[in-house]
Amino acid sequence: MVQFENLRLVLDRGSDVPLYEQVRSHIAQLIANGELAPGSRLPATRELARELSVNRATIASAYETLSTDGLVRSHVGQGTFVLEAEPHRATKPFWPFSRAMEAASRQLLPTTPPTEHPDPIDFASLIPDEELFPVEPFRETIDTVLRRRGKELLQYGPVAGYPPLRHYIAERLAERNVDVKAEHVLIVNGSQQGLDLVFRALVNPADSVAVESPTYTVVLAVLAHYQARVLGIPMTDRGMDLEALESALTRGSVRVIYTMPTFQNPTGLTMDVETRRSLLRLAGRHGVPIIEDDFDSELRFHGQALPPIKALDTEGIVLYLGTFSKGLFPGLRLGWIVAPPELVRTLSRAKMIADYHTSPLLQAAVFEFCQRGHYQEHLEHLARVNREKSRILVRALARHFPSEASWTEPEGGYAFWISLPERVSSEQLLSRGAREGVLFTPGSQFFTGNEGDRFLRLSISRVPTDKIEEGVRRLARLIEQQMAQEPGHSVQIPGEPMFHI
Amino acid sequence: MVQFENLRLVLDRGSDVPLYEQVRSHIAQLIANGELAPGSRLPATRELARELSVNRATIASAYETLSTDGLVRSHVGQGTFVLEAEPHRATKPFWPFSRAMEAASRQLLPTTPPTEHPDPIDFASLIPDEELFPVEPFRETIDTVLRRRGKELLQYGPVAGYPPLRHYIAERLAERNVDVKAEHVLIVNGSQQGLDLVFRALVNPADSVAVESPTYTVVLAVLAHYQARVLGIPMTDRGMDLEALESALTRGSVRVIYTMPTFQNPTGLTMDVETRRSLLRLAGRHGVPIIEDDFDSELRFHGQALPPIKALDTEGIVLYLGTFSKGLFPGLRLGWIVAPPELVRTLSRAKMIADYHTSPLLQAAVFEFCQRGHYQEHLEHLARVNREKSRILVRALARHFPSEASWTEPEGGYAFWISLPERVSSEQLLSRGAREGVLFTPGSQFFTGNEGDRFLRLSISRVPTDKIEEGVRRLARLIEQQMAQEPGHSVQIPGEPMFHI
Repeated sequence: MVQFENLRLVLDRGSDVPLYEQVRSHIAQLIANGELAPGSRLPATRELARELSVNRATIASAYETLSTDGLVRSHVGQGTFVLEAEPHRATKPFWPFSRAMEAASRQLLPTTPPTEHPDPIDFASLIPDEELFPVEPFRETIDTVLRRRGKELLQYGPVAGYPPLRHYIAERLAERNVDVKAEHVLIVNGSQQGLDLVFRALVNPADSVAVESPTYTVVLAVLAHYQARVLGIPMTDRGMDLEALESALTRGSVRVIYTMPTFQNPTGLTMDVETRRSLLRLAGRHGVPIIEDDFDSELRFHGQALPPIKALDTEGIVLYLGTFSKGLFPGLRLGWIVAPPELVRTLSRAKMIADYHTSPLLQAAVFEFCQRGHYQEHLEHLARVNREKSRILVRALARHFPSEASWTEPEGGYAFWISLPERVSSEQLLSRGAREGVLFTPGSQFFTGNEGDRFLRLSISRVPTDKIEEGVRRLARLIEQQMAQEPGHSVQIPGEPMFHI
Repeated sequence: MVQFENLRLVLDRGSDVPLYEQVRSHIAQLIANGELAPGSRLPATRELARELSVNRATIASAYETLSTDGLVRSHVGQGTFVLEAEPHRATKPFWPFSRAMEAASRQLLPTTPPTEHPDPIDFASLIPDEELFPVEPFRETIDTVLRRRGKELLQYGPVAGYPPLRHYIAERLAERNVDVKAEHVLIVNGSQQGLDLVFRALVNPADSVAVESPTYTVVLAVLAHYQARVLGIPMTDRGMDLEALESALTRGSVRVIYTMPTFQNPTGLTMDVETRRSLLRLAGRHGVPIIEDDFDSELRFHGQALPPIKALDTEGIVLYLGTFSKGLFPGLRLGWIVAPPELVRTLSRAKMIADYHTSPLLQAAVFEFCQRGHYQEHLEHLARVNREKSRILVRALARHFPSEASWTEPEGGYAFWISLPERVSSEQLLSRGAREGVLFTPGSQFFTGNEGDRFLRLSISRVPTDKIEEGVRRLARLIEQQMAQEPGHSVQIPGEPMFHI
């Protein structure tokens, strides 16, 4: 077995070569010159990350690239091993990927471990529960629109979207004091495509983008794809920390600010109205546009609705993203961008390059579905279910979690954010949780740096109401077990890196 | 009115600054310092293009950017005028676009002029005729799949696509000797998204991409977006000119070769089997992958089906694109990429960033539709209709067109390519055609350089069978009128640029 010291790996943090690439090329070199023989086991990613004081994802990326290159193979639960050299790697030289794609791939690592527990309780998934889907009314509406205007809806349609749906979305936003018309609305395939088009149209490589820290994992992958520099702005319980943002805006040129002001993913926190106004003023003063990702604000189950930042935007500096994926059917892939009309025209070109337009049939069916009142009924049904789940979760956390833990109490959405007691690692909890039958998302998913291991996200979207308390109980037990491990269990020999056993 | 000489515009062709930007910034400067007063009319794009010996699209891009910047406004039929300075251009500084988006926008210019003719005959559109759509069987299948598994199909689905549809596509290709399985197939939103994902994953800025010249307009926009250098390889009647390709491959590093080997758009030409084999060998020798865009090969109405290049590909160097948009319903936005499984995995990450996945509902409905045999029936129906349209078109061309014109006679697809007699300009024909009630696509759309004006594309997809002969007659008359104009109609005063009157 290879010892760490045999890797003789010294990172050059001042180099332009990314750290993962330094790790990868060093190991590839050792394999090429035979110092790492076939069958050798590489150090575990966590251990090597700790030794080199880098993010675990850095090591995982290096290993993954080595694996794609056919130099090593990982076996679950056993480790990563050096492979025999293959005589012929046929397709390899033909398919090097673009730098943009390589960068994005490094952000898209799998997270939830497989579980063999007979009755796992799933707090990991933010996917809506399909058992609540109003399938039957949707089947009827799609049948109606196909009967009425099938030929038109199966033909190519307008790039910016089906006009009645654009009009409907504008009207719905007008009820929330967002003063827009159909020409401000561009229909896209879910807010995921909204993000892709917006960053495609606005961001050049090496531009800086300010995001909340923590933030939505896949946004980090999109930004990596567009080779943006990500500036993580800490969250406060009133939303993005505006002092930290102002200092970032003052220090250098920030291209765009990305925020989820309502029921933020992963924290569940909501930016209050005064902070929304201050953010707008701050962005306006610095000439930096805001992307408002309002993906789940319609999932409120407590309290008063707040105006979107877009509703307060008199200068046209806010670009707003919405979606039917969290409040209705994710499988339709329907979302929208709201922006000044001249920006909608440019984003329409981005949409045209991306895939021409979104299916007119699905747009017409959802429009008809909304017209008939089914969307509003469904949102109200979801609010009742989630209010109850939230009540049970918060009560169970108070009852079972140690007093050193704390958590957010969102008024809507699906995500609850837990701060763990000191010395408790969410990644370690998760590998035990998979065995003990409780799944969640470790905090490291949502940060670009290393600070995530003290946090985890619980989602109420798919966990059955009557399993919530038992899930919290299982998780509390695991936390207490970790807390009970004395810090003395860490062994350090002077002059050598420290390992936790 | 501004005279050309007042613009004092000298282009620097050796500069890194694009020509359109040189035009734009020069005019913007003249407006800023008052030399071009509000209300002044700019020269027509065609005239300025001719004077400066640049592509008309270059001037159109410059004007369009000036218009977006609020400096000028175009009025249809009147020209482009300098605007009054606005006291406050609120949203402008917030929304500069990325270089990638600017580059793509310059390729996406509107083409077909509006027509006020009472009975226009449309050879321009390559959009399938919705009057032939089998709407009723599709309505029944989508109803069936929603009844059977609505919850699953309205939920998030697998990134790479609905497994039964991936399987079906693999089987259908196997019938054409393409040896692939479901794991080789990635479902995308039409082949437009296929192109976007493929170039996203493979191309870095400044990479060279070899394409047929002429080629599909929107591919040029996608490549501009990814800031590729486009190498146009001439077409022969056996497909891409392999000698020209070999010299390009030998001269420099080509990242990827893009080809439409069957019923090419815009020429309708098909690459013969020997050329397919030679192309594969050539690409293999140079280590350059091939993107085979097989968007309309199922629309054959004459002759024997040829194996796709992918069927001959033993080394896994061909990436294949297919779509349901031309042979079935464009509005579903369904297409597929076929590639080695490791490439499908990477492209799936690109798909995830782009929009997660394509609607499972539409995929399941099309799968069921195909299973019931409706797709095959529809293709056979299309073949009958297009065989008849093609026969009438070719006969009408022979009967009415001057002997100095020539044309292709495709065995499938919708596109016929006309080479015009000398001195006949397709752009000029088109502006007259709009008045005289015959529309087509001018050749300049399909080239990166200036060589397109001697060509035009006729599409049979939407023109009614009984209008084809009359459309050809109208077009022939316009061509003969242009031929009859003596070259002496051009006026040149020594020392001044030449204008055609």
